Amino acid sequence: MSETLLDLTQDGPALTASLVDFPSVSGAEKPLADAIEQALRALPHLTVDRYGNNVVARTGLGRAERVVLAGHIDTVPIAGNVPSRLDEDGVLWGCGTSDMKSGVAVQLRIAATVPEPNRDLTFVFYDNEEVAAHLNGLGHVAEARPEWLEGDFAVLLEPSDGEVEGGCQGTLRVHLRTTGERAHSARSWMGANAVHAAAPILARLAAYEPRRPVIDGLEYHEGLNAVGIEGGVATNVIPDACTVVVNYRYAPDLGEEEALAHVREVFAGCGVDEFVVDDHAGAALPGLSHPAAAAFMAAVGGTARPKFGWTDVARFGALGVPAVNYGPGNPLLAHKRDERVAVERIRHCEARLRDWLTG
Amino acid sequence: MSETLLDLTQDGPALTASLVDFPSVSGAEKPLADAIEQALRALPHLTVDRYGNNVVARTGLGRAERVVLAGHIDTVPIAGNVPSRLDEDGVLWGCGTSDMKSGVAVQLRIAATVPEPNRDLTFVFYDNEEVAAHLNGLGHVAEARPEWLEGDFAVLLEPSDGEVEGGCQGTLRVHLRTTGERAHSARSWMGANAVHAAAPILARLAAYEPRRPVIDGLEYHEGLNAVGIEGGVATNVIPDACTVVVNYRYAPDLGEEEALAHVREVFAGCGVDEFVVDDHAGAALPGLSHPAAAAFMAAVGGTARPKFGWTDVARFGALGVPAVNYGPGNPLLAHKRDERVAVERIRHCEARLRDWLTG
Repeated sequence: MSETLLDLTQDGPALTASLVDFPSVSGAEKPLADAIEQALRALPHLTVDRYGNNVVARTGLGRAERVVLAGHIDTVPIAGNVPSRLDEDGVLWGCGTSDMKSGVAVQLRIAATVPEPNRDLTFVFYDNEEVAAHLNGLGHVAEARPEWLEGDFAVLLEPSDGEVEGGCQGTLRVHLRTTGERAHSARSWMGANAVHAAAPILARLAAYEPRRPVIDGLEYHEGLNAVGIEGGVATNVIPDACTVVVNYRYAPDLGEEEALAHVREVFAGCGVDEFVVDDHAGAALPGLSHPAAAAFMAAVGGTARPKFGWTDVARFGALGVPAVNYGPGNPLLAHKRDERVAVERIRHCEARLRDWLTG
Repeated sequence: MSETLLDLTQDGPALTASLVDFPSVSGAEKPLADAIEQALRALPHLTVDRYGNNVVARTGLGRAERVVLAGHIDTVPIAGNVPSRLDEDGVLWGCGTSDMKSGVAVQLRIAATVPEPNRDLTFVFYDNEEVAAHLNGLGHVAEARPEWLEGDFAVLLEPSDGEVEGGCQGTLRVHLRTTGERAHSARSWMGANAVHAAAPILARLAAYEPRRPVIDGLEYHEGLNAVGIEGGVATNVIPDACTVVVNYRYAPDLGEEEALAHVREVFAGCGVDEFVVDDHAGAALPGLSHPAAAAFMAAVGGTARPKFGWTDVARFGALGVPAVNYGPGNPLLAHKRDERVAVERIRHCEARLRDWLTG
């Protein structure tokens, strides 16, 4: 084996440092994907597949349950923070230390050191998470090779500050358009004001009471908000069009169709002339009531919290696989020049996952 | 006298043609202003003053009343429609035929041929009416030499389709701003939505009932309208600011302060965080109850109608001089490539004014 290969016998912190020192900015993941594939193929208990720069490795022990451990291998652009540096307080600094090469190191350590887990394991390493959604490698695998992602429960090793974040809320963006008729503002009665016609829409939004449903013990918190409004032709013209851009963030007890129907219902009778769905990404259930998840929670400890923002766990949700975020990084340090991770956290995360998968 | 001078002994249609053939696009009025000044200085019954490219000529007969006849000498850019052309149906074609060299020709004809009017006369020829308001020559004279514009009644010979248009409505533009606090739209309860905060403003606008006051026998028609609305930072951010641009067109029974107070009152309690006056031009009373105006109406015939848009008559209004628009052109043809005027209308307008000023 050449020395460019990843050495999976290193401990988690050292492996994290090796990964940080192996740059893989979005779009340039191939060398790292090659190295990961090569390292995993050297492990006889794993079957390895590859699609693009996405690498999937699986045990095939015939266990009653299958668990997926997933992580993206790309980073945001390097900002003078590579190579990595370990300080005397046990903090490892560098691009991707938190988001999420420490999580990838934990995946690789479990892959290399737990040849006979109590649940079958699927390891997913994917590219292009930090860029446009249509480039996302997990999405590409889900579309082209959905069977590779099958499982009873999934853990994304995204930075989660040491807490389990369950599922995620969906996000639906709709353009609500009102129309009118232009006229000179000195003779406004000759026209019809589309901005005035938007008054009921804003009134409905201002009065809206968001739900806070409890799902699998987690309290979600919805929101229905205007994220933009635009109307007007010139300062002396009655506007003939106005668009309110609305974003509905919804809890994972609603499917995509239900969420859409809800928004249509909220604005029924508000004089909306056009209702255009601009973007829609479904929610994901936390799945914490699943036995595998319960054992996971018992092993990692702490209290799960709901994930409000949309994340890649929803891609598992769309495949019917409950998923949580749980990783050693700190999300507040992601994408920062002074990104860092405590090596103790890497060891802790790896140990908890090992307990769960071997206990 | 050189042959470049204007010949005021021509009849109205011929003089209109001479003026059209003497280009004076906004910003390039000097040669025409020179010619007008020279022609008027040749008339012994007039005192002539000049300010920039604005020429003012006055009789000084000690009459009980003074009437102002005013017109702008500039045109919009020529569009292949100069020199003028008289067709066999008695229609004169060319840039400025309607707006408003036919009106200027009538002014000059009255100046040249009515040496002993029954009311003292002031003739105002001004530049830069077709461009930005701050360049307007009438405005410059009103500011620097207001005494030149003194009078009991003013007629602007703007195209008015043969009808008298009395006074004009005022226009007030205000920016109403609401503020909030940004947050990620997935955690909207951490912020405050400024677009939602604009709901009461739009509700107030939608419910507003404009006044239609009758003043000097003319029914005005007010309007309070949003002419623009803008808010939003990004599609996943709760907006922290929203601006509604409101235009109040108000009848001339309201002064500027009253109009402003009315708008403040309309939006009181609507949660407006900033109230910024963006533009304000006062209304002008039609003054049709004044004896000079009554005689004018009797002489020109027809029924006066209210002017809804803001025009230069308001500059006289601001000086306390009631004013109307009355000219031979057709406003619908102004600024058009096929601009034209019926020569009969020029003769008619001149005759009616002569009747009024000599009867």
